[in-house]
Amino acid sequence: VKQGLVLFAHGARDARWKAPFEAVAERARAAAPAAEVRLAFLELMTPDIAAAVGDLVAAGCRHIHVVPLFLGSGGHVRHDLPLLLDALRVQHAGTLVELHPAVGEAPAVIDAMAAFAVRTLQ
Amino acid sequence: VKQGLVLFAHGARDARWKAPFEAVAERARAAAPAAEVRLAFLELMTPDIAAAVGDLVAAGCRHIHVVPLFLGSGGHVRHDLPLLLDALRVQHAGTLVELHPAVGEAPAVIDAMAAFAVRTLQ
Repeated sequence: VKQGLVLFAHGARDARWKAPFEAVAERARAAAPAAEVRLAFLELMTPDIAAAVGDLVAAGCRHIHVVPLFLGSGGHVRHDLPLLLDALRVQHAGTLVELHPAVGEAPAVIDAMAAFAVRTLQ
Repeated sequence: VKQGLVLFAHGARDARWKAPFEAVAERARAAAPAAEVRLAFLELMTPDIAAAVGDLVAAGCRHIHVVPLFLGSGGHVRHDLPLLLDALRVQHAGTLVELHPAVGEAPAVIDAMAAFAVRTLQ
């Protein structure tokens, strides 16, 4: 089954804010060339997650993985995102939409942040 | 000179949001036992950065490194944080307060997020 990956980020007014998220998407595309990879934003940037998921369904994806590019899991990840996905599951019956933990839960991400911070010390 | 490290995060209403940031602070403390490490928050959680920096100065730190635990660099990192640090430099003359890039600029952090996302694909 063709798989899609939605990298879900918060969004911001400053266009430069998006750069690290675009870099993650590029690396994911390079690592998983058989999957369709899309960024989606909660607010202030496009596409929103409804547009990204609709695009993946139109591209033939029947299993869509959603990974929040959030460090902390608060209201956006625990409440807003599940509600958005519930609506999309109704709209796209026949497509499995699977929500995964936020990247801030990944020990390798925690380690990389700590290593970066410690390297600033002289 | 005794060094301090402030890990600056956004803050949220949900107390569970803080867990990954506390994990980063723990790992930084383990990796740099000679430095003083503090978390600080822009809003909704304590301490704020004025309290964290004041605490480090009181502990004898004369070189304080500030690392934003933000993925994207938008208004909070590019505008709000520099203004806060300008005020703290006036208040704590004699202490070097150095702002570093956000963790989202670190290639190892980008790589770790991409690897985590790709591993969700089956």
